[in-house]
Amino acid sequence: MLTVVLLGAGRVASHLGPAIVRAGCQVSYVWSRSLASAQALAALLPGAVAGTSLDLRAHPADLYLISVPDAVIPAVLAEAAFPPASLVAHTSGALPLALFTAYPGLRGGVFYPLQTFSMEKPIEWQTVPLCVEAADKQGEAMLLVLARALSQQVILVATPQRQSLHVAAVFACNFPNHLLGISHALLAEANLSFSLLEPLVRETIDKVFRFPPFTVQTGPAARQDEPTLANHEAALGAHPGWLELYKALTTSIKAQAATLAENNEGPVQL
Amino acid sequence: MLTVVLLGAGRVASHLGPAIVRAGCQVSYVWSRSLASAQALAALLPGAVAGTSLDLRAHPADLYLISVPDAVIPAVLAEAAFPPASLVAHTSGALPLALFTAYPGLRGGVFYPLQTFSMEKPIEWQTVPLCVEAADKQGEAMLLVLARALSQQVILVATPQRQSLHVAAVFACNFPNHLLGISHALLAEANLSFSLLEPLVRETIDKVFRFPPFTVQTGPAARQDEPTLANHEAALGAHPGWLELYKALTTSIKAQAATLAENNEGPVQL
Repeated sequence: MLTVVLLGAGRVASHLGPAIVRAGCQVSYVWSRSLASAQALAALLPGAVAGTSLDLRAHPADLYLISVPDAVIPAVLAEAAFPPASLVAHTSGALPLALFTAYPGLRGGVFYPLQTFSMEKPIEWQTVPLCVEAADKQGEAMLLVLARALSQQVILVATPQRQSLHVAAVFACNFPNHLLGISHALLAEANLSFSLLEPLVRETIDKVFRFPPFTVQTGPAARQDEPTLANHEAALGAHPGWLELYKALTTSIKAQAATLAENNEGPVQL
Repeated sequence: MLTVVLLGAGRVASHLGPAIVRAGCQVSYVWSRSLASAQALAALLPGAVAGTSLDLRAHPADLYLISVPDAVIPAVLAEAAFPPASLVAHTSGALPLALFTAYPGLRGGVFYPLQTFSMEKPIEWQTVPLCVEAADKQGEAMLLVLARALSQQVILVATPQRQSLHVAAVFACNFPNHLLGISHALLAEANLSFSLLEPLVRETIDKVFRFPPFTVQTGPAARQDEPTLANHEAALGAHPGWLELYKALTTSIKAQAATLAENNEGPVQL
């Protein structure tokens, strides 16, 4: 049975830990700066011990998974004492595999789940793409075993590709979430329920995975509907920040529509 | 049986016509500037005649639905000859009911389906919110009859509310679609499949209809992760337009996170 030590007890670790156990692996130790957090997570993982000590020589494991904020990873690595030649993987989309080269006693790896995690909502791990990378073949094999036990979507992704994926994920997830937040706020101001938009939003998302999104772009910017654009900008007068976003996104959509038209792939719609 | 004349044969009319027939109403005449377009749509509507004449006195109907681009509506209204006191409704999210006051012989209305339509994909009309407004009670009643035959989500929405809804829909649909297009393009450059992002995007969307989107914002901007933001900006160097969007959206997310924190509704996440 694969034995894993979890370094971190935040959102990602809290989803990952129980999934690892359900997949038939053992989590032996959960570390966090906060003993309460480590204990809360360890309580969900039969056989796991919680602690705040980074002397990990007392906790031998096949894999040490570091799941803490990116900015904290170097401090954890610098402070921790691992058994010799330990396999240590981080779960960050942004950080390179090469960060482990500063710690020659370790075998580095990356175990990046391409998903957004919140405490309130369980995750269907079987569908989560797991992006794996390792400094050596043996480490890669070990990470692949764990990944395939968790998900049906496992891919080997080298650092530069993973970093592209991370930027793309910001455009696909974080930015749309923010815009949906603005939409939510605008409807609240008009005493309208945000749920009115649910069929529209779900249709939009269904469409982008069936057709290249640029080719199914709709709305006043795509159809160069200047009177509507002017009305919308006027309506956003009370929110100068959102008005700026409106203008920037409109400019970008118009530029994209012009590019499509030049390439004879448009006009997109009328 | 309610008799409807369709003015327009574009995307919205092409979805609306068959739905009206399936709902048990009659479409008697389909007008378009393009006879071929009118004929293509009328062919789907048993009993419908296609034509390019806007002398509608030969086509009496309970309701004339104008479903053409916003900019074209005034020209169609100016050119058309309706039977006296006809009920005429447009399907635009942006245009006011008051536009009909310039045509005193008509009874104006609005029949706005809050959905995005493409030729390639059928629509589940039962779930589409239909926003209805009319200048007189009798017209309103007629539009409600048609709306309720099509959908389970029918609401009376006055012009200013509808216009707020329209701006909100741009933030919820058109803008995210564009950002997903950028994401698609960035992944193509990295030789990665856009479908990798589907679980992430669907989870993001599931979440926004369960929790207020601003409160579940994740990503480097929300957690003020400056090194990652700097790396992402560097990675977008080849796409100055998208880099500008990245910066504008990051600024807006940071501002929103600061507002939430001030109101003690944050921190959103770590």
